[in-house]
Amino acid sequence: MSNQSGAFRVGRQTWLFPNDVRILATATAVGPKEGQGPLGSMFDQVYDDLYCGQDSWENAERQLMQDAVSIALQKAQLTGAEIDVFFAGDLLSQNITTSFAAEKLAIPLMGMYGACSTSMLTLANAAALVNAGYAKKAIAACSSHNATAERQFRYPTEYGGQKPPSAQWTVTGAGAAVVGTGGKGPRITYATMGKVVDMGIKDPFDMGSAMAPAAAATLQTHFADTKRRPDDYDLIVTGDLAAVGFPILKDLMKRDGYDLDGVYNDCGLMVYSPDQDVFAGGSGCASSAVVTYSQIVDQLNKGVLKKALVCATGALLSPVSYQQGNSIPCIAHAVSLEGGVA
Amino acid sequence: MSNQSGAFRVGRQTWLFPNDVRILATATAVGPKEGQGPLGSMFDQVYDDLYCGQDSWENAERQLMQDAVSIALQKAQLTGAEIDVFFAGDLLSQNITTSFAAEKLAIPLMGMYGACSTSMLTLANAAALVNAGYAKKAIAACSSHNATAERQFRYPTEYGGQKPPSAQWTVTGAGAAVVGTGGKGPRITYATMGKVVDMGIKDPFDMGSAMAPAAAATLQTHFADTKRRPDDYDLIVTGDLAAVGFPILKDLMKRDGYDLDGVYNDCGLMVYSPDQDVFAGGSGCASSAVVTYSQIVDQLNKGVLKKALVCATGALLSPVSYQQGNSIPCIAHAVSLEGGVA
Repeated sequence: MSNQSGAFRVGRQTWLFPNDVRILATATAVGPKEGQGPLGSMFDQVYDDLYCGQDSWENAERQLMQDAVSIALQKAQLTGAEIDVFFAGDLLSQNITTSFAAEKLAIPLMGMYGACSTSMLTLANAAALVNAGYAKKAIAACSSHNATAERQFRYPTEYGGQKPPSAQWTVTGAGAAVVGTGGKGPRITYATMGKVVDMGIKDPFDMGSAMAPAAAATLQTHFADTKRRPDDYDLIVTGDLAAVGFPILKDLMKRDGYDLDGVYNDCGLMVYSPDQDVFAGGSGCASSAVVTYSQIVDQLNKGVLKKALVCATGALLSPVSYQQGNSIPCIAHAVSLEGGVA
Repeated sequence: MSNQSGAFRVGRQTWLFPNDVRILATATAVGPKEGQGPLGSMFDQVYDDLYCGQDSWENAERQLMQDAVSIALQKAQLTGAEIDVFFAGDLLSQNITTSFAAEKLAIPLMGMYGACSTSMLTLANAAALVNAGYAKKAIAACSSHNATAERQFRYPTEYGGQKPPSAQWTVTGAGAAVVGTGGKGPRITYATMGKVVDMGIKDPFDMGSAMAPAAAATLQTHFADTKRRPDDYDLIVTGDLAAVGFPILKDLMKRDGYDLDGVYNDCGLMVYSPDQDVFAGGSGCASSAVVTYSQIVDQLNKGVLKKALVCATGALLSPVSYQQGNSIPCIAHAVSLEGGVA
């Protein structure tokens, strides 16, 4: 396989990984609400309180990321010293979950920030470096925590602030994937990397509406670049559009000739059940990470799914940008995962 | 050149770019204090006030990043549509400078966070994707702004808080580099990607001491992996160790057999003159970016320098991690730039 410029991509935005790049192992660690949800039995580590045995919520989030990475390494029968590069990110200011987790891991760190798109941003970059020969093995990871996010982006939860039904519930959890070549795990076949899309929406309690156009842009680019159609996939998921963004994305796609009926779901809707009191559904970096790195990868490994497209969606706002009256720039990165031994 | 696993690296942490990967153009935009400093005439855009024609400091920082990218594109005689990927980061929570600048640019965005190491973190990743064929051309950029950083990390400047002499002055500026293959710009020959190093230092007014061990770790790995010695370079710079960290790094290196005398400088010391009242010197993502992407690249292009090693240093703290009593995790990424037509 050539490495001449352009050999590893189609179009401007879609990357290829022809050197048998695979997810060797994944792991997830979550909080209590996620453990009680419909995917509860699929997660590797479920904590029964939000502190996860730590003395602060921020330390709890670090613990979740460290757990996800440690368990993924165990499953892959590898040690951290055998991993060449750690692509990771989280929602907290200055990516502190990532930096403190990386300190314990002693793996060269590439900190990334893509808000809730970070799961696929890190997976795609890890896959690119493995495919190209910059790393034999890499880890992609991300995390979010309901209580760290609430007090950073909104109000301390003790204030009991009211929210509209379009608000979302930040998933407490972390997911990690070990990426390498060979073996039997799902192949990473395409990654379509997004541009920032900003439709002028300013309401941080309605991020699903803000993010849906970014997801549509990335999915349409993916289909154009790969010459695939939605029904080439057994499952297409977005990261965290939840109940408000989900129908908007379907409409946007249908308007442009792509029918998602029957093949599309959203990780923010999959991670909780409707009776769990989560407003419109889940959000956060962990939303797509814990669903993809548990049920979706499991179903790809078992042959229940043959091809899945994970389009992780991110709302790139900050408390400062919101308070200064800016709109919410959004982005989405999509990665195609294919099961079965090649 | 093969792309088999391991072909593009030596050791675990050092990447190679044998496909003639070069800096095609660079640009810098800075604030008034930087314009008055010793490198003032080297910068492409100098604003005479901190607002840079905008209505907030945050918008000013975005303007600086947009200016740096736009001018770099002009110098390279390229448009944004010819750039496949934009690796960028800044110091602000949720990387908002980057996200809003990327919106205007319409280039697929890979947001990165490495605190003040972001200049070389983004340059190395851009170079890797270009070398591997994931992008024909890429842009690496980063920014910082004194007033946005002060109110985020410390106090609003209006409070007039006192600082000790070991404190540093966040550089107001942005730097961008267009990376591609061929042409006459400096070649990117090696990048040594750092691990997180934390020596337990907790004082955010003494980041030079905190970061020096991370710089030493990356430099020593670089020399071991490349079998080079400090005197193989005409210039080795760190990003922002400034007056306190500078002698600490020299001592740490000398203790382990590497003499930096005569070849070593620090961008945080180069960007201001001693009479500019900047405590120990400059810091921030822009410190290494505006020095490297002005004087250092210029001297490489002119043959004044043949080989330069830029070791960008980052203190990965956040206001929350500091307030919660955590130490300061640090990291450094080093990129080797070599002038002259191959």
